[in-house]
Amino acid sequence: MFQIFDSDTICAVSTAPGVGGIAIIRVSGPDAISITDKIWKGKKLAGVESHTAHLGTIVDPQHPGEPLDTAVTTIFRGPRSFTGEDVVEISVHGSRWIQRELVNLLIRSGCKAAQPGEFTRRAFANGRLDLAQAEAIADVIAASSRSAHRLAASQMRGEFSKHIAELRDQLIEIASLLELELDFSEEDVEFASRQKLRELAETLYKKISSLASSFSTGSVLKDGIPVAIVGEPNAGKSTLLNQLLHDNRAIVSDIPGTTRDTIEDTMEIDGTLYRFIDTAGIRETFDSIESLGIERSYSAIAKAKIVLWLVTPKISATDFTTIGLNIKKHLTEDAKLIVVLNKIDTISDTEIDATSVNLCNEFVDSPHSLCENNIHASFQTLVDFFSQHDKNQTNVIDKLIYISAKNGQNIENIISELRKCSSAESLEDADMIVTNARHYEALIHAQDSIHRVIQGLNNNLSGDFIAQDLRETIHYLSTITGSITTSDLLQTIFSRFCIGK
Amino acid sequence: MFQIFDSDTICAVSTAPGVGGIAIIRVSGPDAISITDKIWKGKKLAGVESHTAHLGTIVDPQHPGEPLDTAVTTIFRGPRSFTGEDVVEISVHGSRWIQRELVNLLIRSGCKAAQPGEFTRRAFANGRLDLAQAEAIADVIAASSRSAHRLAASQMRGEFSKHIAELRDQLIEIASLLELELDFSEEDVEFASRQKLRELAETLYKKISSLASSFSTGSVLKDGIPVAIVGEPNAGKSTLLNQLLHDNRAIVSDIPGTTRDTIEDTMEIDGTLYRFIDTAGIRETFDSIESLGIERSYSAIAKAKIVLWLVTPKISATDFTTIGLNIKKHLTEDAKLIVVLNKIDTISDTEIDATSVNLCNEFVDSPHSLCENNIHASFQTLVDFFSQHDKNQTNVIDKLIYISAKNGQNIENIISELRKCSSAESLEDADMIVTNARHYEALIHAQDSIHRVIQGLNNNLSGDFIAQDLRETIHYLSTITGSITTSDLLQTIFSRFCIGK
Repeated sequence: MFQIFDSDTICAVSTAPGVGGIAIIRVSGPDAISITDKIWKGKKLAGVESHTAHLGTIVDPQHPGEPLDTAVTTIFRGPRSFTGEDVVEISVHGSRWIQRELVNLLIRSGCKAAQPGEFTRRAFANGRLDLAQAEAIADVIAASSRSAHRLAASQMRGEFSKHIAELRDQLIEIASLLELELDFSEEDVEFASRQKLRELAETLYKKISSLASSFSTGSVLKDGIPVAIVGEPNAGKSTLLNQLLHDNRAIVSDIPGTTRDTIEDTMEIDGTLYRFIDTAGIRETFDSIESLGIERSYSAIAKAKIVLWLVTPKISATDFTTIGLNIKKHLTEDAKLIVVLNKIDTISDTEIDATSVNLCNEFVDSPHSLCENNIHASFQTLVDFFSQHDKNQTNVIDKLIYISAKNGQNIENIISELRKCSSAESLEDADMIVTNARHYEALIHAQDSIHRVIQGLNNNLSGDFIAQDLRETIHYLSTITGSITTSDLLQTIFSRFCIGK
Repeated sequence: MFQIFDSDTICAVSTAPGVGGIAIIRVSGPDAISITDKIWKGKKLAGVESHTAHLGTIVDPQHPGEPLDTAVTTIFRGPRSFTGEDVVEISVHGSRWIQRELVNLLIRSGCKAAQPGEFTRRAFANGRLDLAQAEAIADVIAASSRSAHRLAASQMRGEFSKHIAELRDQLIEIASLLELELDFSEEDVEFASRQKLRELAETLYKKISSLASSFSTGSVLKDGIPVAIVGEPNAGKSTLLNQLLHDNRAIVSDIPGTTRDTIEDTMEIDGTLYRFIDTAGIRETFDSIESLGIERSYSAIAKAKIVLWLVTPKISATDFTTIGLNIKKHLTEDAKLIVVLNKIDTISDTEIDATSVNLCNEFVDSPHSLCENNIHASFQTLVDFFSQHDKNQTNVIDKLIYISAKNGQNIENIISELRKCSSAESLEDADMIVTNARHYEALIHAQDSIHRVIQGLNNNLSGDFIAQDLRETIHYLSTITGSITTSDLLQTIFSRFCIGK
């Protein structure tokens, strides 16, 4: 299995960029050990055993009197290393200057600077991992919640690849039955029972489809469930966001290297990541710039899996109608709506009821009596309105939540509601889930071609045609684990990695 | 030398915060290996040799079916480790989630979260390093230029400690001569020649003083040479700063976690760090807020080692005089002034000359003839003015530089001038240099007490008194390397470290 990917020896900082207690510079390739020996004062590494660590000093041979740093080098001889090649991990003090100088020194001594993902690419080329496993490494590193991590880690361990390989084996079984038929085609004998072939193909079609359709869940688990916080201007949307994040400060995670402008705040609840999108206030306006912001709020609703609609007691009836109708218009079929009445600290219970009554009156053409009794009845009107035009009845508002974002009152009710809404996305009882767009695409292609196999069998097409579609299905599944691949594809995949991995 | 500092086992992420290809979680203490074994699936670490690396899986015993990550653990058995205790370094994929979960898992399994600097503190407590070496580790990690790194690395290797120890040994020699005298004091015999004692003490005084006075150079090398860019409003100060940094983009370093508001941009030229301070424009003003900004510009001049005074052809004569006089007023004795005529792209050569002539006329009461001929003569007038009241003649303007910051014209002349100005701070021929404020303070105290020793010898004081001052000198030197220390002092020193070191 061991094959030299190419003859270069590469190096890069493999730990997070920036200043730390220690930093690891990784060297991989046929000359990893001999190059390190050139800049190393300590036990000669060429002679040491694999998987041993050695204390010594990094010294530029050009400046022997001025050691760069004390270091610990750990030797991994190929093929028993991450890349399958000889690997040296050099652990130094984590200043920017030392990291930069050591990489420069290695390059001056014969290394090449590693491209993004080049270590993993070599691991793939040397058969240490298949392509789906290699891709999962980038996902493992990027994972910021338990769910995302679980998915990526399981894929990295090869569980997804194993599943794909099983599907592929079954396809090959069908193919071989067909081939047998072809071999004896002149004798007009059907060795493979067409009925049995069709059953097999249909089972596989179902499996591939179910895998493909898991992508929607998979990408939500990976990137976080999008939650749009909408409402009229000054409804307390940002205050609520801060409260939500504050209440969970220990588990708040900002995605690094990004700003609030482009990536929203994320929060993990019970291992699931939520991605909150704070939107511009919605109201009727003739101001064109404000309209632009409102359009963005609508598009946030359209992308959200959960919409938190914040309403305040002081909202104008017009704004309430505008927002309600627009939410209904933009909400996707499988999204959930939670209505939150904010600023309950500013009003009495009676006023809360009065507010609800007024809003309901404005909102629907129902008789006043429906709303007059109490807030719960009023709320029922809202629910009716929303479910009225809802074919699938999936946008159920099963609760109206009263909060004071300012005082942090009842925020826990929102969190528990979020938890409930997302339980469908839970991994607990999940089968294999697809998180990678490339895999999804391959599965869709495979789904198409296996579908054609079934049609062919139904229409009693000759084995040749069916075999062609079968081969195509096998081809697409093979691209997932990389048994079939192209250099361009590899380039695209690994360029998305960070340098040093 | 090996002593258990305390019975806790500590853990922390030791690599830079954030996401990276790999991250190292370090565990140190008596239970480092047994705790890791609890969460480790692979070869039992309790049985492995020191300095060996092992591939395995991190598994929470509470969730055995869901491995956290594949990992490489490297075992360092005490005392052959950084802390002197048993140390396990766990190398995992560098996602935030894995880092957080692994630390939590270690804590649940019996570790304590390490305090800032606690690993180094244990190394000190276990005699692996002295205090000056331990302090140097923080400086090594923070160093962002060759000079700063060299100083810190040399101190970390113990060269500074050795120097201090030599001084201390010589003091102890004097002390023992004195003690001899005391022992025989009744016989009125002077065993120690007072003349010899004085000579020794004076030599030591000189050495300690020279060390103490190196602190000014040392702190400049560590933090960067402060360069104030001053001039009238809109003279192109920020443009020049950007040009300077742009021309050296490859070696620009921003100090992380800080903003431009509090820490200035830094740039390394030939291994020396420059810290540029972009100031508010200076002009005569009655606006109180603007005055405040201008006051800050003056205080930047007072702190600078180099002042770049940007002048434009359009400057008013009043502003020119105001700025010139104020620079002169605030410039420190050992600071250098470089006058830069900016925006030469906007005017012809003749105009440049005319500008200079006008400015000079305004500036000094010298006859017009002095300035009339050409720009060089005009410039001479400026030089004369600046050197006129300058006792030490150190603020020499030896060159007027013409640039266009906008077009990047002649920026290299400024860089070469900076290089020249700072050559005095070069380390090439440097002796021992003090970079740490605590060491500086101890040296100043030691200097005072050794001075009293000399006075005592001069005044023929009895040996008792002199011995007291000698002991004090020895005490202060001992605090530097930590032979004498207090728990409060250690607390202060190590709390400045990052966690994980």
